[in-house]
Amino acid sequence: MDKKVRAVSKPEGKLAVLLPGLGAVSTTLIAGVEMVRQGKGLPVGSLTQMGTARLGKRTDGRTVKLQDLVPLSSLNDVVFGAWDIISENAAQVAERSGVLTKEHQDLVRPAMEKIVPKKGVHNPEFVRRIAANHIKDTKTHRESIEALRQDIRDFKKELGAKRAVMIVCASVETYTGTPAATQSLAALEKALDANDASINPTLLYAYAALKEGVPFANATPNTSVDTPALQELARQENVPVAGRDLKSGQTMMKTVIAPSLKARMLGLEGWFSTNILGNRDGEVLDDPQAFKAKEVTKSGVLDTILQPELYPELYGKVSHKVSIHYYPPRGDAKEGWDNIDIFGWLGYPMQLKINFLCRDSILAAPLVLDIALFLDLAKRLEWKGIQEWMSFYFKSPMAQPGLQPEHDLFIQLTKLKNTLRVVAGEEPITHLGLDYYGDDLPIVK
Amino acid sequence: MDKKVRAVSKPEGKLAVLLPGLGAVSTTLIAGVEMVRQGKGLPVGSLTQMGTARLGKRTDGRTVKLQDLVPLSSLNDVVFGAWDIISENAAQVAERSGVLTKEHQDLVRPAMEKIVPKKGVHNPEFVRRIAANHIKDTKTHRESIEALRQDIRDFKKELGAKRAVMIVCASVETYTGTPAATQSLAALEKALDANDASINPTLLYAYAALKEGVPFANATPNTSVDTPALQELARQENVPVAGRDLKSGQTMMKTVIAPSLKARMLGLEGWFSTNILGNRDGEVLDDPQAFKAKEVTKSGVLDTILQPELYPELYGKVSHKVSIHYYPPRGDAKEGWDNIDIFGWLGYPMQLKINFLCRDSILAAPLVLDIALFLDLAKRLEWKGIQEWMSFYFKSPMAQPGLQPEHDLFIQLTKLKNTLRVVAGEEPITHLGLDYYGDDLPIVK
Amino acid sequence: MDKKVRAVSKPEGKLAVLLPGLGAVSTTLIAGVEMVRQGKGLPVGSLTQMGTARLGKRTDGRTVKLQDLVPLSSLNDVVFGAWDIISENAAQVAERSGVLTKEHQDLVRPAMEKIVPKKGVHNPEFVRRIAANHIKDTKTHRESIEALRQDIRDFKKELGAKRAVMIVCASVETYTGTPAATQSLAALEKALDANDASINPTLLYAYAALKEGVPFANATPNTSVDTPALQELARQENVPVAGRDLKSGQTMMKTVIAPSLKARMLGLEGWFSTNILGNRDGEVLDDPQAFKAKEVTKSGVLDTILQPELYPELYGKVSHKVSIHYYPPRGDAKEGWDNIDIFGWLGYPMQLKINFLCRDSILAAPLVLDIALFLDLAKRLEWKGIQEWMSFYFKSPMAQPGLQPEHDLFIQLTKLKNTLRVVAGEEPITHLGLDYYGDDLPIVK
Amino acid sequence: MDKKVRAVSKPEGKLAVLLPGLGAVSTTLIAGVEMVRQGKGLPVGSLTQMGTARLGKRTDGRTVKLQDLVPLSSLNDVVFGAWDIISENAAQVAERSGVLTKEHQDLVRPAMEKIVPKKGVHNPEFVRRIAANHIKDTKTHRESIEALRQDIRDFKKELGAKRAVMIVCASVETYTGTPAATQSLAALEKALDANDASINPTLLYAYAALKEGVPFANATPNTSVDTPALQELARQENVPVAGRDLKSGQTMMKTVIAPSLKARMLGLEGWFSTNILGNRDGEVLDDPQAFKAKEVTKSGVLDTILQPELYPELYGKVSHKVSIHYYPPRGDAKEGWDNIDIFGWLGYPMQLKINFLCRDSILAAPLVLDIALFLDLAKRLEWKGIQEWMSFYFKSPMAQPGLQPEHDLFIQLTKLKNTLRVVAGEEPITHLGLDYYGDDLPIVK
Repeated sequence: MDKKVRAVSKPEGKLAVLLPGLGAVSTTLIAGVEMVRQGKGLPVGSLTQMGTARLGKRTDGRTVKLQDLVPLSSLNDVVFGAWDIISENAAQVAERSGVLTKEHQDLVRPAMEKIVPKKGVHNPEFVRRIAANHIKDTKTHRESIEALRQDIRDFKKELGAKRAVMIVCASVETYTGTPAATQSLAALEKALDANDASINPTLLYAYAALKEGVPFANATPNTSVDTPALQELARQENVPVAGRDLKSGQTMMKTVIAPSLKARMLGLEGWFSTNILGNRDGEVLDDPQAFKAKEVTKSGVLDTILQPELYPELYGKVSHKVSIHYYPPRGDAKEGWDNIDIFGWLGYPMQLKINFLCRDSILAAPLVLDIALFLDLAKRLEWKGIQEWMSFYFKSPMAQPGLQPEHDLFIQLTKLKNTLRVVAGEEPITHLGLDYYGDDLPIVK
Repeated sequence: MDKKVRAVSKPEGKLAVLLPGLGAVSTTLIAGVEMVRQGKGLPVGSLTQMGTARLGKRTDGRTVKLQDLVPLSSLNDVVFGAWDIISENAAQVAERSGVLTKEHQDLVRPAMEKIVPKKGVHNPEFVRRIAANHIKDTKTHRESIEALRQDIRDFKKELGAKRAVMIVCASVETYTGTPAATQSLAALEKALDANDASINPTLLYAYAALKEGVPFANATPNTSVDTPALQELARQENVPVAGRDLKSGQTMMKTVIAPSLKARMLGLEGWFSTNILGNRDGEVLDDPQAFKAKEVTKSGVLDTILQPELYPELYGKVSHKVSIHYYPPRGDAKEGWDNIDIFGWLGYPMQLKINFLCRDSILAAPLVLDIALFLDLAKRLEWKGIQEWMSFYFKSPMAQPGLQPEHDLFIQLTKLKNTLRVVAGEEPITHLGLDYYGDDLPIVK
Repeated sequence: MDKKVRAVSKPEGKLAVLLPGLGAVSTTLIAGVEMVRQGKGLPVGSLTQMGTARLGKRTDGRTVKLQDLVPLSSLNDVVFGAWDIISENAAQVAERSGVLTKEHQDLVRPAMEKIVPKKGVHNPEFVRRIAANHIKDTKTHRESIEALRQDIRDFKKELGAKRAVMIVCASVETYTGTPAATQSLAALEKALDANDASINPTLLYAYAALKEGVPFANATPNTSVDTPALQELARQENVPVAGRDLKSGQTMMKTVIAPSLKARMLGLEGWFSTNILGNRDGEVLDDPQAFKAKEVTKSGVLDTILQPELYPELYGKVSHKVSIHYYPPRGDAKEGWDNIDIFGWLGYPMQLKINFLCRDSILAAPLVLDIALFLDLAKRLEWKGIQEWMSFYFKSPMAQPGLQPEHDLFIQLTKLKNTLRVVAGEEPITHLGLDYYGDDLPIVK
Repeated sequence: MDKKVRAVSKPEGKLAVLLPGLGAVSTTLIAGVEMVRQGKGLPVGSLTQMGTARLGKRTDGRTVKLQDLVPLSSLNDVVFGAWDIISENAAQVAERSGVLTKEHQDLVRPAMEKIVPKKGVHNPEFVRRIAANHIKDTKTHRESIEALRQDIRDFKKELGAKRAVMIVCASVETYTGTPAATQSLAALEKALDANDASINPTLLYAYAALKEGVPFANATPNTSVDTPALQELARQENVPVAGRDLKSGQTMMKTVIAPSLKARMLGLEGWFSTNILGNRDGEVLDDPQAFKAKEVTKSGVLDTILQPELYPELYGKVSHKVSIHYYPPRGDAKEGWDNIDIFGWLGYPMQLKINFLCRDSILAAPLVLDIALFLDLAKRLEWKGIQEWMSFYFKSPMAQPGLQPEHDLFIQLTKLKNTLRVVAGEEPITHLGLDYYGDDLPIVK
């Protein structure tokens, strides 16, 4: 083994998971962690809680849980804090969201009622369709940042936490492209001083977190740490960051199916995806400007997976359409319908149709949990900046400038698990396996 | 790089691909190879013809075609021979099968008319619903084997080929489980002498091929080289073998979706698969005994992918049902409908439904081509016995006794490509990628 | 108006609905009626409770509720009795079935606990997969009939009912075709005397009901009143009868889609229907002999709707396949997948695929209610024998010998509503409507 | 029988079917009629060519073809003329459209090459995405009308036709709502004089047809004869008219499914329809203003079928969303995906999902043929104005002011067939059928 990383030991003390946005995802996460602690629910969907890794050769019989492979915080040490622009407590939000059954809500109500959000930073230009009633009365970006930094310090104290991570789970903001103010840290500082109108609330949360040395991840498509300005800040402050936009439903499935087509060298003529959802997310996305942000993170995945530059005859002319519709009968459930037009040997056409009846918050909650625990691990490893090995969780993952981000779910998983193996001082796995066959498949050393 | 294999050079002379079974798949393959040679068609679906591998680091910009990475036969050097129990030539079979358009058939008719099958070995106990009219008049298994071995030698002479591979593309035979006669080479030899009724035609083809030193693969669910008897023979005769049952449509997709569920640690409550097909295959499978063989290869995939022993809470109680129906309106097309009942965070249920409108022979033909070229490579590498690295192509892939066979399509692809990298003297890829990040993710050497 | 029927007035007193089979359908019905009475639920799916009929011309503005058009029993006057071969009371059955939410069960538990079944007539040759524990100890068919007749009289007394109807909602019995014993009343009487083994329990219930003058309907595919023997008895005893097999899910939809194809003169090449269900019904149908009975009632619908004898070019060669699979994850829900291969102008093929995620008992319960109320109406009208106007409710409706049964849902509805109009002394509706247009579309009287 | 209409005899001489718009639908129709005449194709989808009607009682055995019931033009007497803003002849359009196979095109090429369109009336404000190259050089609406009227007279002469009908099959025009100019004939005349910009090309075609006494139908969603102005003109000129927008694919199916839900009194919470199509129609509809026109005709159907005013609890709050997407891989095929959220007994939710892989022109062509023949019949019957009995063919059918238009496909069919019965002097059918049952269901005369 020629690659080693700094040794890191089991963490002590509590970890505060700070959530800008106390909505359906956040409350489903908080309620679930509480239920798991009570032994009343399984943390299904969470790699940190349920995943394993095989170590060594297949015949070694060494398979361990990921939480035994690397030193992660225990669920018993995880505590939650949140901000929101609506004043409801976590129990009220959970009831309104309708994700969890009445029975499950009853199990966790006392704990949930204690989760009361701090006032949020709001900008009606960025979040249009929500009636905010719980807003900081700060006048400038600098004031908002100071207030958020104070909140972070207060949260740690109130929650008795030694360490914190921040993961934005707020509403989708209006799409603004890549504002000039985010292209360098210097430009950003100037823009903050000038109270520049192009700066969105999510970016202020990110800035505050980094300044406090708190690892930050972005579960939304909003602009934040995938800008040059914040990446510079992250490295300067020695903070690991990750994002953006959780890859939970239709897009997750897309990053499963597209690699399978490429694995088999099957051509792709078109991919039509439509998505119906009925929760607040859907309502917000009914605003075309908010949808634009989502469309951007959803559309990019095919190209980097399929590599049309390498396979022009197979993937050079793909009609890729993505649409999202607000459809109230769906509630918090989300339904995707994908029509995939492929072609095979000699160009003969075939079709694949996928109908995914999924639940947004149920899929997202365990991803947020994993991100929190892994970011905290990265911080303790003294890693900073982009955590490419966490690409597994995002629709639009970050990579070093000059590197293509990796979208293929299976490559992302290999990357994640091999990174954890290396962190644990184990060999990465190549699935080569010639050596099991001795003289039948001779290897010349 | 600490793993090297014997060097091997670009092959010279023609490679005879010998096909027991001149049906829709075989003729689609032969016609397609001819069209590709004429520049009139693309070998879509074939890794050997269209696939690439990245070598070294992502920033190295070294991506090569697989056929440039390892020395494979050129399509110009591939020639075809076939056996069948019906006397039609390849052009007639193609016309009856209705896979290719009239226009494509016209392009290749002269070449196809020259492909006339040699008489096949037939046993009406194993293949019940076909009116055979082109059968060897051998009286015993030993006579049949001798006749087939003579055919192989004749094919090589007639086709001017230096090397040959055999790939069974015949009809599905009645399922017989694991007859005693196949449990050791000694038992088999005795059973052959005794003209044992449990020995199926496919096994005779396999025996003949191995005795002639011809690499053998089984594209059907029929019993052959995944028995101890034939594996012993393969090693004794220094011949590489692969099988069984091509993984082309619904099962291929199953080995894509199941790993994605496991990647995300989503639970599985049930998986209902139904399949409608209207070609001769469907007609044969309408015989419950033939269906049984297919059901066995189709059913095994979930368990080894999902590892219920490792994840009892997620995959310990899966209702897995597979059904196949003969439905004449489908013709050679094949349609799968899968209903997948999954559960996420805290056990909340979700559904995934997949409707695959595919074409059997279009998906299968390029796989047969790849298998032929890779088996020939293995032979030139002096590899013998089970070729686990070719698991990618099979519904029921073989592995060393004591090893679980690998069903996950993405692990299979990694295994295949990393094997080819090693054959070419390149490093296998681990997708680790920490080293791109320098001091941000420090590695202690 | 040249057609009139006997006048009938609003019924007085209670109507006992007697249900052989206290399973998911029966308990969903009983619980629902209770909830409706409490004002806690809507009787959705019931024509008698929610349906209306337009009377006279469209411009007359006369649309009335069906229950105001003809004199039906009020829900307040409906009482229930049941037989079963398992001793659970209705509350227990409802809990095990899992059709209704916990919350709904709580609302009606006291009423449901009082519904305790009388012991059922059981024959393990006909119902194989159920562990019966609540069986009459009668030794002969004649004894069973006597016991059932006594039960009917007892039920009326216990429930304080003046009138009764019986609707069989029991498990599917083994298919026996058309036993000789059912071909005439004389043959049946002889067979009953001889304790003939071909006589199924459902038939005994029917015989008992008719002898007691109680209108009878068969909600299952089991053999009963669509035999010559029982029809003779029904007319002799002046009792109206209806059946068989409720048309609730996939078949209902089939009788909607098939008429639409014929309306548009679109051709049909094939129809593949598969059905997955996870309740006791599914378990029983896993027995191929029980499935056979269901397959028969499910398969007949296409031919009589499409009239291949009239349209041989469009419907002369239809591949119609029906399959049912027991798939436990579905629970009481039922899911149909239909693939319909149609062809249009010049024979060009098109496909229609229907995925129906339905709930068996939710669809069936209101049909049973309607049948009960309409049968009671028929009895008060002094109608007897086959009630063709109730074809709307059945997969395999009955018609006079010499008449094709009518399967088209819309013709069935027209038949039903026009019959009710006539009963009420109103004109049947023809949808002609020329007369609204005065001189534009002149009518010469 | 108390309703009679004027007697009408078998028509003599040729009928010119004049088609503004020589696109995929028109050429598929013309090619098909030619193939049918040659005995090389079946007019599937056409009621006039393949439909039958039962006359009298079911036991009478009197079922006749519709073309024997009422005197329609024979296909041998139908001739075609067309206008278009692109100069291609019918053979060229057919080739570009890709609806018919090469083989079918070859069969009819000579006849198709002779169909050359006359120059069309074009207004780029109404048809934006088409590069017109074959346009009348008229300067005013009045000039355009005069030119069209001359064309009609020329067509009749050139084609040797005694009678003509006009059916608009042109591109969808920009939606303009209900311009003031169309609210009365006087307003229209004034607007024509003033060359009012709100007047669309389709309306000019309609005006010209009516003035020439030519029956007119509108197969598109464009504004024309469903305006008060043109209806006044139609009655004044004694011309029958019909429209608008052919009901061929997804909407046709909607008017089948919705009535079935109402038949069963199943509630509806939402209906989400998405449609992908890849032909010129799709391209035109990618213009949001054109889509608007389509959306209006597509959206209206549910309300009039479901009658929410009558059933507020079942249909009072339906989320109905319709979307259309241009998706080039579909070509002339059209694919609908409908998700229908229904509820049953006590409000329990169920889902119905419909995936319709259809072909636009294949479905539309026979409808245009039927409309032509029936309009010609109406003209010979001296009927004028709205032909409500032809509602069967339209997404947005017309009815007398004060009458709800009828959308239910089955009521529309009943209306159509009963009208034809009455035209033929036969009794309309009510499906009552009590009289087959003699004394069992006694009728008091």
